[in-house]
Amino acid sequence: MATDARFERINTVLDRRQMDLTVLMEHVNKPHNLSAIVRTADAVGVHDLHAIWHDQDLERSNFYSSGSNNWTRVHRQPDIDTAVDTLKQQGMQILATNLSDSAIDFREVDYTKPTAIILGTERFGISERALELADQHIVVPMMGMVQSLNVSVASALILYEAQRQRDIAGLYQHAQGVEAQEKQRLLFEGCH
Amino acid sequence: MATDARFERINTVLDRRQMDLTVLMEHVNKPHNLSAIVRTADAVGVHDLHAIWHDQDLERSNFYSSGSNNWTRVHRQPDIDTAVDTLKQQGMQILATNLSDSAIDFREVDYTKPTAIILGTERFGISERALELADQHIVVPMMGMVQSLNVSVASALILYEAQRQRDIAGLYQHAQGVEAQEKQRLLFEGCH
Ligand SMILES: C[S@@+](CC[C@H](N)C(=O)[O-])C[C@H]1O[C@@H](n2cnc3c(N)ncnc32)[C@H](O)[C@@H]1O
Ligand SMILES: C[S@@+](CC[C@H](N)C(=O)[O-])C[C@H]1O[C@@H](n2cnc3c(N)ncnc32)[C@H](O)[C@@H]1O
Repeated sequence: MATDARFERINTVLDRRQMDLTVLMEHVNKPHNLSAIVRTADAVGVHDLHAIWHDQDLERSNFYSSGSNNWTRVHRQPDIDTAVDTLKQQGMQILATNLSDSAIDFREVDYTKPTAIILGTERFGISERALELADQHIVVPMMGMVQSLNVSVASALILYEAQRQRDIAGLYQHAQGVEAQEKQRLLFEGCH
Repeated sequence: MATDARFERINTVLDRRQMDLTVLMEHVNKPHNLSAIVRTADAVGVHDLHAIWHDQDLERSNFYSSGSNNWTRVHRQPDIDTAVDTLKQQGMQILATNLSDSAIDFREVDYTKPTAIILGTERFGISERALELADQHIVVPMMGMVQSLNVSVASALILYEAQRQRDIAGLYQHAQGVEAQEKQRLLFEGCH
């Protein structure tokens, strides 16, 4: 792509970014899941993601070298209390994905509000503490024998429901977009 | 779970199966993608999946031993022409997922009709021949910088749109369900 066209493209994408929509990953460990989640986030205009990792968690280097996270930011959080506190201070509703009867269908939520979606670890799901701190528990309905979906699949279904609602509400036309400094950084890196 | 309850559960799941909704995977190779696709298929009531593989394709043994494909059937197809022919003879509309301008938004399709969704290989996407044979090309809209979604993510978004439409149309209440012989097999295996 010619540099001018590419510059325009990056500009447009960054202007549509939904700064009040985010994901908080609680010990999501597998590089292929992290990479799929970040790609989907980028595709629906999420710019900031948050993650809590144990030091011993994963092959994160694999993930960081995959290139799929160049267009978004993954902020490392020390623990769930701090993470949720930070997001609540930004006025976000906190949704915990959870496979239980207390959870409502993910399509019933209003995602045009500032929203953070908590995703659980592959093996054991979301922590008790995260469930406690959340404003709402949500679930993707399942009609089969398998107990849970892949975490990147579940997050994509929720993020694209948010995209659908926000598109209808005109939130991509009138987006806040990323702040000037981040924009400069990405335009510089993306066009050189 | 007590055997009676488990028997009931399996019965109900198999009676809701959508025998006229399927996926055709063209050289989808990575075990974690195959496993995520099969889990999602099970969750929306797809019982039969189709796959074309090269002999040298993947670590398929990994996939077969993961257990996630116990509740669905993956039929191996020799080539794309035979596969599409088989599905067309079953009266299915053939949708090819494709990242091009000729593709329509995946949400505009009527999935209450008998439907097969073709998914492309991780690296290169769908073949020219598959695009030729398809009735329609569909795309999941993307508003970011990354070019494509993970294949299990893309298929899940499409399958859950089908689930949404079919649920509204009452197709889970009045499903064909799996045939008697397959039902016996799964009830036997699942309760022993
Ligand atoms: C593989 S699941 C964890 C399964 C774990 N055994 C449990 O019971 O929670 C990993 C994460 O994927 C997400 N997830 C998977 N299936 C989901 C569903 N049907 N609805 C909502 N979230 C789901 C949740 O974030 C979950 O914590
Ligand atoms: C990673 S993509 C292949 C990318 C490849 N470079 C191309 O240009 O097609 C693998 C498969 O995922 C599916 N896929 C990925 N993103 C999609 C999207 N936005 N819409 C529809 N299907 C998509 C398609 O089946 C595609 O063949």
